[in-house]
Amino acid sequence: MTVASMLFSCSMHVGVSNPKMSSKASACCLLNRPWPSCGQVGVSEKSKLLCRAGALQVESAPLFSVGQKFQFDDVIEAQQFDRETLGAIFEVARSMENIRGNSPGSQMLKGYLMATLFYEPSTRTRLSFESAMKRLGGDVLTTENAREFSSAAKGETLEDTIRTVEGYSDIIVLRHFESGAARRAAATANIPVINAGDGPGQHPSQALLDVYTIEREIGKLDGIKVGLVGDLANGRTVRSLAYLLAKYRDVKLYFVSPNVVKMKDDIKEYLTSKGVEWEESSDLMEVASKCDVVYQTRIQKERFGEKLNLYEEARGKYIVNQDVLKVMQNHAVVMHPLPKLDEIEADVDNDPRAAYFRQAKNGLYIRMALLKVLLLGW
Amino acid sequence: MTVASMLFSCSMHVGVSNPKMSSKASACCLLNRPWPSCGQVGVSEKSKLLCRAGALQVESAPLFSVGQKFQFDDVIEAQQFDRETLGAIFEVARSMENIRGNSPGSQMLKGYLMATLFYEPSTRTRLSFESAMKRLGGDVLTTENAREFSSAAKGETLEDTIRTVEGYSDIIVLRHFESGAARRAAATANIPVINAGDGPGQHPSQALLDVYTIEREIGKLDGIKVGLVGDLANGRTVRSLAYLLAKYRDVKLYFVSPNVVKMKDDIKEYLTSKGVEWEESSDLMEVASKCDVVYQTRIQKERFGEKLNLYEEARGKYIVNQDVLKVMQNHAVVMHPLPKLDEIEADVDNDPRAAYFRQAKNGLYIRMALLKVLLLGW
Amino acid sequence: MTVASMLFSCSMHVGVSNPKMSSKASACCLLNRPWPSCGQVGVSEKSKLLCRAGALQVESAPLFSVGQKFQFDDVIEAQQFDRETLGAIFEVARSMENIRGNSPGSQMLKGYLMATLFYEPSTRTRLSFESAMKRLGGDVLTTENAREFSSAAKGETLEDTIRTVEGYSDIIVLRHFESGAARRAAATANIPVINAGDGPGQHPSQALLDVYTIEREIGKLDGIKVGLVGDLANGRTVRSLAYLLAKYRDVKLYFVSPNVVKMKDDIKEYLTSKGVEWEESSDLMEVASKCDVVYQTRIQKERFGEKLNLYEEARGKYIVNQDVLKVMQNHAVVMHPLPKLDEIEADVDNDPRAAYFRQAKNGLYIRMALLKVLLLGW
Repeated sequence: MTVASMLFSCSMHVGVSNPKMSSKASACCLLNRPWPSCGQVGVSEKSKLLCRAGALQVESAPLFSVGQKFQFDDVIEAQQFDRETLGAIFEVARSMENIRGNSPGSQMLKGYLMATLFYEPSTRTRLSFESAMKRLGGDVLTTENAREFSSAAKGETLEDTIRTVEGYSDIIVLRHFESGAARRAAATANIPVINAGDGPGQHPSQALLDVYTIEREIGKLDGIKVGLVGDLANGRTVRSLAYLLAKYRDVKLYFVSPNVVKMKDDIKEYLTSKGVEWEESSDLMEVASKCDVVYQTRIQKERFGEKLNLYEEARGKYIVNQDVLKVMQNHAVVMHPLPKLDEIEADVDNDPRAAYFRQAKNGLYIRMALLKVLLLGW
Repeated sequence: MTVASMLFSCSMHVGVSNPKMSSKASACCLLNRPWPSCGQVGVSEKSKLLCRAGALQVESAPLFSVGQKFQFDDVIEAQQFDRETLGAIFEVARSMENIRGNSPGSQMLKGYLMATLFYEPSTRTRLSFESAMKRLGGDVLTTENAREFSSAAKGETLEDTIRTVEGYSDIIVLRHFESGAARRAAATANIPVINAGDGPGQHPSQALLDVYTIEREIGKLDGIKVGLVGDLANGRTVRSLAYLLAKYRDVKLYFVSPNVVKMKDDIKEYLTSKGVEWEESSDLMEVASKCDVVYQTRIQKERFGEKLNLYEEARGKYIVNQDVLKVMQNHAVVMHPLPKLDEIEADVDNDPRAAYFRQAKNGLYIRMALLKVLLLGW
Repeated sequence: MTVASMLFSCSMHVGVSNPKMSSKASACCLLNRPWPSCGQVGVSEKSKLLCRAGALQVESAPLFSVGQKFQFDDVIEAQQFDRETLGAIFEVARSMENIRGNSPGSQMLKGYLMATLFYEPSTRTRLSFESAMKRLGGDVLTTENAREFSSAAKGETLEDTIRTVEGYSDIIVLRHFESGAARRAAATANIPVINAGDGPGQHPSQALLDVYTIEREIGKLDGIKVGLVGDLANGRTVRSLAYLLAKYRDVKLYFVSPNVVKMKDDIKEYLTSKGVEWEESSDLMEVASKCDVVYQTRIQKERFGEKLNLYEEARGKYIVNQDVLKVMQNHAVVMHPLPKLDEIEADVDNDPRAAYFRQAKNGLYIRMALLKVLLLGW
């Protein structure tokens, strides 16, 4: 029995056993009121949103229980997901790849409203989430100037903004400039919150789409060899990826980076503690020849301040080009979180092993999956 | 017979007797062309938009006539509504609270497009209107940089902009920086216009949601006692609220504000002329103990310019906190137009009498009601 | 047999004979997968998008072939359309005028997503395209700050941005500040691209709506007399219009402009080479009395830099007012691409021959037609 079929056969149990579902929310379910709020007295809407999937099936006993294994109310950080939940999300994402325009599946989120509450612009991330919502028949309220809500002059707290916006929508996708903002928002909101990046903190849907892409491209996650290349010190992406890959067996990581932007010790120590093999290398060609995935990243100029000479030196050091492609194995792929500069030469795009645009597209499927699970349950 | 049933039973009469419905518009109705325009010769689209509700029922004589009592083509200022029309709008708003996602009601505005034409950003108001439209199945064209339409360099008049935008949409929600802009827009447009704030002028949907909230929370409007607290000089909100409450019987208003931002004489004189009792007080505790509603407002720093000492003095003077809650009656509520700062202490949020987030949510229902009535009639 | 019926009866032939339709795309059709991509290996989505209309009808032999006469994958410049294709587009636009809200026609693009990728704001153009998409049941991903994608700091190429955005949408409407950007985008994209203005370059949907408006207002294109008035040197609009009108027979153009902004020689030479009669005149009254169309334009202050005296002189020279209307023929019309300033006096708006707001509305129908043809085929 696959993970997915397990999931679906016991979805009602997950719904019912959710400790957040108060008696008020249950009453709500019986009245079949997904929104607006059941009266005006602060019912937990998160639990309520799961009613559709669960309430009517309470009578039929599940064959077995997965407990709350796959249950989550918000998406705040990559670490919140264990290996099994990742696998379950990936199965949903996979099913999203087959949804066609105007099919019943493409309407599964009809009637739901997502608020994209962005305190700083991030057009790429925003469009990806909004496309995901609309591909499933949902609709979107957009703001890219959410700072106006809490301008210095007006000074509203994030919590108050969340309490207002949750009155207008069914799920909030939050981009914020402060680490920890998503967690605060989720603690306040009675509807699900997805973290779409909070400052130097987390960007969990990016981490998920990276792991999903490796599985889709290579066909497995256990036993893979991944070379992380470029800015390993500042890149939120590679740090999260290293963290997530530690959940799989026999993974080997190679770190290839200029000295000024080496992988930090906290991640190295974490990997060691989890029994993940890693090594640092200055030989991109050798690493590329061994790896299943060459994960290239952009050297982030904005992190170097006035030390532009250091930036220029770091920037030109490890380039993915035809020479690298030549030593890479046939089944291996090049990934990149995008946007890319000249750290990947333009003609690499034409090689079938250049996976980065497929990776960007996978972001759509992962986000469709997260929206589906948060709003409808498994 | 309730006001609502009266309304619905005679809706066709209202439609037909509308003096704005020219013979061209009538022809239009017969052709069942809600949009695009019936030919290209300047038909009154406002009247036409009522055709759907009205045209087919012309034959069946209404049992009685409400004339044009509840008829309005635009929402420009709070004063345009008499007590009966307010009651009718509130009944529609009340019905909006029960609309569920994917129910037939949630599709009543399907096929309609609202243009949110904002000459200055106001994310909160914009999201509330856009949520209202989408909750009813309609769709939205959004702009928050409408000034670009009429930039100094290009210099297009508001009237020309309106004539262009009405070609793309079925209803316009206008936010403008100039008092009177909404009235000018409505005079030009052949489709309905809703004023979402025009400079220091009006913001009628805010005024409506305030009165609606009082009725929902307290259960009545006649005979209520309301304490208006904080910046009574500059607050568009409290001025409109005072104006609207004067339409009800036996209302008593208390004004509690720092000296620099006292309620202006024009409102006081108006209230007196309407027989509404009011008094000024510097004792928030005493007022709070008597009132049904404590309507707190933010001291608007931006109005003080460089006199920051006056601002700081005014700001700390009247705070709603646990002490105030203690003297308030059980049925009484605290309201606030939001965003709030420290004029309400954070732990007040947890008291069931803190009504301000419910008030914000009521803005959604009021705007749903206005969109429904303007686009479909009663 | 009209052009339109010809078109529809042989649409399947057009689809099948399209050389861009690779075998992969054909396989895709059989699987009925309009989106997401058929696997992840770079299938031509443009051809695929035509599958819905075409694939099922492959067996039935078309009665006759129009070859690829009307076939286009992108809308990049006005010149790409020959007279017959223009006629065919206009027939589709005409049919768009009759689409009613909630009719089946209003849902023809349901399930399709348009990305409006604007590197500079142009609210008017954006709202017109977005209204067109939504009037046909499609949905929209909007960005007006697409520069953020390719900021100096991040430096992503336009090509990379297009490859990302095409993963989220079915058609891209691009506004860019660089001439030639739309052509580059179209060369990269596997989905259709519409140029919504690229710097000093092209704005083809504007040119189309101008010609469409002349045909709608005057009833013909062959044999018409058009007076182009105002800034003929800098106006992208009048240059494109002159170019397109050269495709019709017995057209006569009059150029009426201040000396500093005269029509440039390249257009004059082109017209002469095509046998189109033209003459320059400084007598607006005489020209107005002869013409079917007086096409007024705004003198573009921003082109004069510091030579404001030249601007002021040019600006006041040729004004359309009641005197001009008096000498114009009854069937003649005044057109203007908008926004207008005082080059047309305000009271001209009330004359039935003032066609400019109808012209703006026609932009909606032309854009509906382009979206329909690009996404569904003829």
